[in-house]
Parts: sequence; C-alpha cells; structure tokens
Amino acid sequence: MTFEMKQKVLFKHCDPAGIVFFPRYFEMMNDCVEAFFSDVLEWPFESFVGREGVPTASIETNFVAPSLHGDHLLIALVVERVGKTSFSYRMTAHCGEQKRFETRARLVFVNDRGRPQPWPDAIKAKLERQLEPAA
Amino acid sequence: MTFEMKQKVLFKHCDPAGIVFFPRYFEMMNDCVEAFFSDVLEWPFESFVGREGVPTASIETNFVAPSLHGDHLLIALVVERVGKTSFSYRMTAHCGEQKRFETRARLVFVNDRGRPQPWPDAIKAKLERQLEPAA
Amino acid sequence: MTFEMKQKVLFKHCDPAGIVFFPRYFEMMNDCVEAFFSDVLEWPFESFVGREGVPTASIETNFVAPSLHGDHLLIALVVERVGKTSFSYRMTAHCGEQKRFETRARLVFVNDRGRPQPWPDAIKAKLERQLEPAA
Amino acid sequence: MTFEMKQKVLFKHCDPAGIVFFPRYFEMMNDCVEAFFSDVLEWPFESFVGREGVPTASIETNFVAPSLHGDHLLIALVVERVGKTSFSYRMTAHCGEQKRFETRARLVFVNDRGRPQPWPDAIKAKLERQLEPAA
Repeated sequence: MTFEMKQKVLFKHCDPAGIVFFPRYFEMMNDCVEAFFSDVLEWPFESFVGREGVPTASIETNFVAPSLHGDHLLIALVVERVGKTSFSYRMTAHCGEQKRFETRARLVFVNDRGRPQPWPDAIKAKLERQLEPAA
Repeated sequence: MTFEMKQKVLFKHCDPAGIVFFPRYFEMMNDCVEAFFSDVLEWPFESFVGREGVPTASIETNFVAPSLHGDHLLIALVVERVGKTSFSYRMTAHCGEQKRFETRARLVFVNDRGRPQPWPDAIKAKLERQLEPAA
Repeated sequence: MTFEMKQKVLFKHCDPAGIVFFPRYFEMMNDCVEAFFSDVLEWPFESFVGREGVPTASIETNFVAPSLHGDHLLIALVVERVGKTSFSYRMTAHCGEQKRFETRARLVFVNDRGRPQPWPDAIKAKLERQLEPAA
Repeated sequence: MTFEMKQKVLFKHCDPAGIVFFPRYFEMMNDCVEAFFSDVLEWPFESFVGREGVPTASIETNFVAPSLHGDHLLIALVVERVGKTSFSYRMTAHCGEQKRFETRARLVFVNDRGRPQPWPDAIKAKLERQLEPAA
C-alpha cells in the first residue's frame, strides 16, 4: 500500500536558483513519515517520550529533476521491509507525471536512552500490513 | 586532500529528542561544500548567476551515531571522482574519535537553464588536484 | 475580513525543550502570507519575477504561550493598513482558546531592483476590500 | 559592552530573490544569543536540562536593507535591561557601514515546567556587568 501526501513548493523551500534547496526536501520527507505514523500507524510522533523516537539511520536519494516554486508535489511512501527494531521505506515525489526524487531510507525505533528497541506488537502488525504484496 | 570544516551543534540543529534533526545535517553538508568552493576552488557560490549552480544530483548518508547539542563536529570532504560536468565527494563528520555520519554525493554543474555544462578548465584542474592519490 | 490557515505543530518545528523554536514561527507566518497572496489576492508568490517580491520591512511579535509538538494552530491574518507600496497586517495564532503569538508586520512591494513600487491597481483594490470595517 | 558575531550570508539563508529570507535572520539572532550565553555568560544552552531554557518572549525587528548571498555581516548584541527572570537586548547587523537589521527582544529564563524563574545570582551579576553605562 502507498501512503500519499501533497506538498506545494513554497517560497521557504527555494534557493537563489529558484528551485527547492535539497535539505528542504529532507524536511518534506520527514513530514511525510510523520504523517504516515499519525494517519496510518495511529502513533503520532508527539506521543514519543524523551529521547524515544524513530531516527533515520540511513537514507539515499536521487534528485531526478528540479522542483520550482509553486509546483504541486505528490509524495508517496511505501514500506519495503519491516525488521525487529527498524523498517525501510521507499519514497518518491512527482509533479504530474514527472519524477522529482526517489529515496530509500531506514528508520530505527529507539528507547529513551537512544538504543534500538523492538516495535510494539500492534505497530509491527500494522507495518507488516503495509508491505507491498509480492508481484 | 581533505577539506575540513568545524561545526558546533547548535540549538537550532536539534530536535525534541535533543539530537541533530537529520535535515539539518544536510544543511551542514551544503555549508561544507559551499566553503570548499569558496576556499579551495576560489569560486564562491555567490558568483553564480541566475539558475547557474551545482545542485546535488544524488546523495547517500549513514547516520552512524547521534550528535548532541554542544558537540563539536569536524566535517571532512574528499573529492572522489571528477567528471566532465559533475564531481563526486565523500564526507564524514566526527566528534572526537566517534564517527557521526558518512555521505557520498554527486554534484552537477548546470547552466542558467538548469542544463549540465562542462566545468571551466581552471576549476576542473583544481578539482583534479584534490583527488586522493591512489593507494 | 480574516484569512485563516491551519498548521499542526510538527517535529521539524520543535526544539530540544519540545516547543516551537521561534524562527520556525516566522516560517509559518510567511507561509500564511504566501497563502493569503495565492488564495485571496490570486497573485501567488511564484508569479513574481527575479528580485520582484514583497519582503518584510518590519515585524514585531509577542510569544504569549509556548506551542507543543502536535498542537493544532489556527493562524489568522487581518489587513490593517494599505499604503501605496506597502501594507500592514496583524496575525495571531491560537490553539483552541489559547493565544500563542500575535504579530504586526509591514510588507513592501519591490521591483526587480529591490526598490519599492506601487501596487498594481487590481491588487490595491483587493487589499482595500480586506480592510476591517471601522467599529 | 557589545558582543559581536560574524556571519557570512550563505546559500541556505537566501530566497528566490537572492536575498536573506527573513526567518533565517531569526536563526542568526538565536545563534548570536547562544554564542553570548556560551562565551560571555559561560552558561551554554546545552547545559540547560529538559524544558529549562531562555525562550524569546517578544521581539521586534526592522529590516533596514536586504542582505545578499556572500555578504559578511557583523552582528552585535547589547544588553539593555536585566530583570529578575528576564533580560532585554538590542541587536544590529551591519555589512560594512550599512545597517541591515535592528532588533529588540526580551528573553525569559524558565524552569523545567516552562515557568519563569529568577536568574542564578552569578548569571544576573554577569548580565548586569554587560549593561551599557548610562551616557
């Protein structure tokens, strides 16, 4: 299953060349993951306590084409792999038919001391339900 | 050769878990590349005209360990490959002996219409002088 | 008349104390002004050319109470004064009944050389229609 | 006495009009206050615990002239008033002789529940030593 979030490219995202400054894309990616936790897992980030959270352990991104101020992006997240203490997702952004970026990343669930800890069972079950069916 | 930049982890970089929010790391990486262009290539970003620039085409990062507010990071950039219209770098950040992230990225030199264009000869020569000697 | 924008407080807005980092509020304010130009004036920021734009000339803000991660803010903009080349607005943010900030600011319409220029007649007319009726 | 911080205008600070996006100025102001606490008060922000901190209660800024990418700013902070639980500062930024912004702001020292609390005596004494001598 695919989780989607719309994002208009705003003034604050753009650099002197008039295109999205790439660190702002990573804020959009984080916003999409945050919305996925809130809307799909029903486990919003704001319910984490102290240092508990889901920091990004690794991320790789291809910026396929630049995005201009005013572009309407559709950002799509797909869960690719669910581990005991982590999960991996693939994310793309399109403006109409044109791909703007593609990302793969891995998040780790950490406890209040920043150490990896197993997903709660209910969350793991929800994550696994998101896995794409094999082709 | 290695280009180094110091960066203290500031309040603005940190999230509710008290560690660097990962999109802020990408701002630090961009600052390091900007300083490399200014100090090593003597071709500061502010001399680009219009849409001319060096957008990041791809980047992959491992966040090896979290950074805390107040940590003193040493960010190091090494040129890995120089192409006709692009170059690739490796970047690491350490706090003391501990690695915090490692990145590989590729930048493309684009003209005022956002199209790849060959490096100026003098810049290409400087970039090639930065290449690590083969072991 | 009042223009309203909803904004959930997200992870990216918050600091190590778990509350909105105040420069992020100014990004929200800018987003609200950008939405006002797009939705009310039907003159989106992305239609500006080159250095043409509406930079903020002055702004004063009281942060009445802190906002927490997950709070749902309602941001409200009211046009207070329309000049030949500028306009002034008042903006507030509330979470439920509680006020979080109040701002007064003045924007100036500048041309491609960054110099103040008169509003287009149609825009000035729209801005004036937004003025609050005298009590 | 005046506390000074240098800040080059970087790519990340600038908007599609090629000038500093005003919320980025507020990040610079916060950086300057953070450096003042670290260097002058010898009480770095990273030593605050939990929600303890010095949030900005009010701030007003005039953006006198735009700053361009590559400009070298000198940001200057002067303590204007020291209260029991707060202090007020004036801050300016110049590029050479030209003023870019002037700010007045008030910070409040809050405890771990976000409530105002009196400055530690040693800090209050240091703040008072910073007060400008009456003319």
